[in-house]
Amino acid sequence: MNPMGNLSMPRTDLALEIRETFPENDTQIQGVLLKEEYNKKRDIKVTTVTIKDDRGAKAMGKPIGTYITIESAKLDEKDESFQEPITKEVAKYIRQLAGDVKGKEILVAGLGNREVTPDALGPQVVDNLLVTRHLKEEYGEEFLERNKMGNISAIAPGVMAQTGMETSEILKGIIKETNPKLVVVIDALAARSVDRVNKTIQITDTGISPGSGVGNNRKELNKKSLGIDVIALGIPTVVDAATIVRDTMEHYMQGQDFSEQETNQFINEVGEHSIRNMFVTPKNIDEAIKQISYTVSEALNQSFV
Amino acid sequence: MNPMGNLSMPRTDLALEIRETFPENDTQIQGVLLKEEYNKKRDIKVTTVTIKDDRGAKAMGKPIGTYITIESAKLDEKDESFQEPITKEVAKYIRQLAGDVKGKEILVAGLGNREVTPDALGPQVVDNLLVTRHLKEEYGEEFLERNKMGNISAIAPGVMAQTGMETSEILKGIIKETNPKLVVVIDALAARSVDRVNKTIQITDTGISPGSGVGNNRKELNKKSLGIDVIALGIPTVVDAATIVRDTMEHYMQGQDFSEQETNQFINEVGEHSIRNMFVTPKNIDEAIKQISYTVSEALNQSFV
Amino acid sequence: MNPMGNLSMPRTDLALEIRETFPENDTQIQGVLLKEEYNKKRDIKVTTVTIKDDRGAKAMGKPIGTYITIESAKLDEKDESFQEPITKEVAKYIRQLAGDVKGKEILVAGLGNREVTPDALGPQVVDNLLVTRHLKEEYGEEFLERNKMGNISAIAPGVMAQTGMETSEILKGIIKETNPKLVVVIDALAARSVDRVNKTIQITDTGISPGSGVGNNRKELNKKSLGIDVIALGIPTVVDAATIVRDTMEHYMQGQDFSEQETNQFINEVGEHSIRNMFVTPKNIDEAIKQISYTVSEALNQSFV
Amino acid sequence: MNPMGNLSMPRTDLALEIRETFPENDTQIQGVLLKEEYNKKRDIKVTTVTIKDDRGAKAMGKPIGTYITIESAKLDEKDESFQEPITKEVAKYIRQLAGDVKGKEILVAGLGNREVTPDALGPQVVDNLLVTRHLKEEYGEEFLERNKMGNISAIAPGVMAQTGMETSEILKGIIKETNPKLVVVIDALAARSVDRVNKTIQITDTGISPGSGVGNNRKELNKKSLGIDVIALGIPTVVDAATIVRDTMEHYMQGQDFSEQETNQFINEVGEHSIRNMFVTPKNIDEAIKQISYTVSEALNQSFV
Repeated sequence: MNPMGNLSMPRTDLALEIRETFPENDTQIQGVLLKEEYNKKRDIKVTTVTIKDDRGAKAMGKPIGTYITIESAKLDEKDESFQEPITKEVAKYIRQLAGDVKGKEILVAGLGNREVTPDALGPQVVDNLLVTRHLKEEYGEEFLERNKMGNISAIAPGVMAQTGMETSEILKGIIKETNPKLVVVIDALAARSVDRVNKTIQITDTGISPGSGVGNNRKELNKKSLGIDVIALGIPTVVDAATIVRDTMEHYMQGQDFSEQETNQFINEVGEHSIRNMFVTPKNIDEAIKQISYTVSEALNQSFV
Repeated sequence: MNPMGNLSMPRTDLALEIRETFPENDTQIQGVLLKEEYNKKRDIKVTTVTIKDDRGAKAMGKPIGTYITIESAKLDEKDESFQEPITKEVAKYIRQLAGDVKGKEILVAGLGNREVTPDALGPQVVDNLLVTRHLKEEYGEEFLERNKMGNISAIAPGVMAQTGMETSEILKGIIKETNPKLVVVIDALAARSVDRVNKTIQITDTGISPGSGVGNNRKELNKKSLGIDVIALGIPTVVDAATIVRDTMEHYMQGQDFSEQETNQFINEVGEHSIRNMFVTPKNIDEAIKQISYTVSEALNQSFV
Repeated sequence: MNPMGNLSMPRTDLALEIRETFPENDTQIQGVLLKEEYNKKRDIKVTTVTIKDDRGAKAMGKPIGTYITIESAKLDEKDESFQEPITKEVAKYIRQLAGDVKGKEILVAGLGNREVTPDALGPQVVDNLLVTRHLKEEYGEEFLERNKMGNISAIAPGVMAQTGMETSEILKGIIKETNPKLVVVIDALAARSVDRVNKTIQITDTGISPGSGVGNNRKELNKKSLGIDVIALGIPTVVDAATIVRDTMEHYMQGQDFSEQETNQFINEVGEHSIRNMFVTPKNIDEAIKQISYTVSEALNQSFV
Repeated sequence: MNPMGNLSMPRTDLALEIRETFPENDTQIQGVLLKEEYNKKRDIKVTTVTIKDDRGAKAMGKPIGTYITIESAKLDEKDESFQEPITKEVAKYIRQLAGDVKGKEILVAGLGNREVTPDALGPQVVDNLLVTRHLKEEYGEEFLERNKMGNISAIAPGVMAQTGMETSEILKGIIKETNPKLVVVIDALAARSVDRVNKTIQITDTGISPGSGVGNNRKELNKKSLGIDVIALGIPTVVDAATIVRDTMEHYMQGQDFSEQETNQFINEVGEHSIRNMFVTPKNIDEAIKQISYTVSEALNQSFV
């Protein structure tokens, strides 16, 4: 969960939601491909946004790459019968983006603050993960293969207010020292739409670029900054307070035929408001995080055997 | 932290904020007294709202009794030098409402869900509290007095989604069995104003009446339902999402000379919106809850010696 | 997990281990029945000790009733394929002791201190439990039946150092107020043998009698003290430090033909030793408690549909 | 807290306790200096063991360097009036070993497993620490100095079973990337004597050498392995189960004039016993860890201003 970026834009970490801000009839933004699949039986919707070139990246404000969004109304529900198909779907797309990593070393980084419930997702995924890298040292080369285990290490580094360090510094150091072939980053995200909170998993090969377009390159977690392939799993667990106010208002104003100028004036006022460092999250966030962290860690366990 | 009540009213648990909804020039609502004090040196503001009779109770939508609100911009700051004066002020008003309880048995109930950060305040206060009732059994009658300790028991009962029981059922049962003379209830509240979140402590002798006016009497925690005197300490740690949207909008619309009808129409639409079960809280909520829980438990430790 | 009782006896909460202290050739202690079953396929051993009368109770130092001990070397292992058969076995015996409680209200009490890892088992079982009692209020009489759910409430009351109250006081009060038909008490126990730690579940209809024979009746949790049927699930997660020293020593001394007097002298010296308030637990206790709490809560979920 | 080393030696991480195993009249082991101070007013005992050369290192089985042990019976007590003098004493010796680090970057590493209570000390110290390194980036060069803050970063890396990585790998990577001048390592230790558990802080400039003498150099955390100065704060919170059995037995056997051969035979048998991966800890370990972690983090806050 990252500090809010530019308030003049509604804040979202989901490529899908950025895509939605374009006019509906603009079926093909230059340089951006959109593919939607719906698994009716499992009630899972998968949308793939592919940003092909710089033109697409500029239009979207996101780096070139693939953004797969898996949506299921049942993602945060406790019933285990719902979770198995979602787990398989997530594992399928992780493997698709990861390429051939069979038997290779993988570092899982669970970002976020374990003391703030909606931001505890990353650390909780690490808590549930089957970590195995040290077993190879202990029991010899073939142990992992014989037991159908991947070679997994994991870290929950905490957030800058706790460590005083950029997450990228911590991960870069650990990667240089332990030489994984791929890092999988798990993080809680901000969605624009309340309806996507705890219902959506975004998987991307572009890494995580908090406040992209704002230009704080130091903070990015991607192949360029970390030196190895990065897959990021992001799950929206909050909406920024300013975004929710802005969107509710905009929705109303559009219905009322306000001028664009009036709408913008309001938006700027919201930007000044004291809600700048606040987030919105559901009241059952504890159970949602617990449930989703199981699903994600199980998907990771299945992905890298 | 209680489920949202009636959305047609902005939601607040603070008597002070209800009082503020009345016109500023209405200096004396019938049956309601207002007293403000400001300790300049300590930068602490204390407002006492006294609801004297049924007329006042009806106007305020709150039971007859005393509501003391202690406001300090430094309540959630880590520096210990800020906390000592606040602690003393809180202890002073607890003792004022508690009357003569020297040496008497007191039960502290830390309400809320310890798994949801802004709702974990009550349980964390109990974690930090000096509990002593069992020491009397163990070391004899005079042990507590000799060591200048009150006779304190404590419980963090959890919320209904965790227990399947009303908090009032749990507390009533424990009170009947252990016979305390006073119960002090600690709970995280919803404020209307973002600026009061984590900056305010409300102390009242009326108990806690979640969704008052909605008529769910079973849920009330007060002298009538629990059978003994109740003092409630409430600390606003969230704002309801619907309230923040509504208030921001209203603020804007008033500046723009919208008709009352237009404003009401918008408010009703917000009521339909999916943000109904969501709350707003600051990003540093973990540190705020940690800090405030120390201050409150220390104030309780000092209050009942 | 209860404070140590009489040090002159090796400390165990397991009826099975008390039975084992009798000579091996004493196949039938008066008033005590012993039945052993072994499920080879599942590698689960079930021992039923039935104390039939006062003579048996006196010999065993335990109340009249049934003590079922389920042993599996895989109880604390992470692999889910091991857990399903154990879950079913546990649910079977809970139902056997509970009698006909279909559709009746059941209170689950998770005893212990959630801040001390081996004692956190009870609270963690409650965390994982499907609590449903409030859903009946919310969705009407038939909701639970239609969804094949039992009527479950739950509480994790904490320990006396946290609450200042006896657990029996808290439970008695809640039971009187909420009227369940059965209370299921979950607690971490002390075993005598290191090999039983985290490998054993004891299910009994006699309640939990900490320090039985020491005579602190107030503390007992059973039908007499709580007023309704009690089933206790106890899982040994620790060995008392004095017991482990005493038993290791005794084992050695027996091999060396020490006189009984010499052995007893040593045992008394251990009783004076500063290890009185210490316990022994395995280094992987965090993972064991996590795993066992899932298994127990799942067994409870299955038991009362 | 580290896996047990060689069982034929009683296990302790305290230089002081190794020194005590030498005969009492051997007032000066070659290459080892011993200095004892007792602050009567504060009831704090400080013992400095200085290993001067290879001969001393070999005799002690510990690296050359300074080992300061601060003992206070009140270290784990809740009363704040006890903690202030201990805090000052600890800060004094940290500064003494750290040399001139005023204004320099310091990394604090809180080792251990936060899910196992006696091993959670390191992570809890990090939780309470005032971390400041990022404030310099945010507010400019002079901010820390103006506010009398040190330049502190911190990490609680977790244990190998959680990360799959050696702690030395993680720290080495982070140190290379963030360039601190000193790393302060906090870890829970194993004492030999029950009486030192939660009553003792060892401060050393030699780093932490788990299983020293066993030769697992990869695991050592010291200047050689990490590349910068290391100060280690170790607090014994457990005794190894095998050690407690062995020592109790030895104590008894010495009183009984057993031959050395008989004693050794017993010791070897204990080594075979199933208590190998178990530890002993007091029942109030949760409160002890909470209290000591405050004291240590406060001492660190004061040390590097």
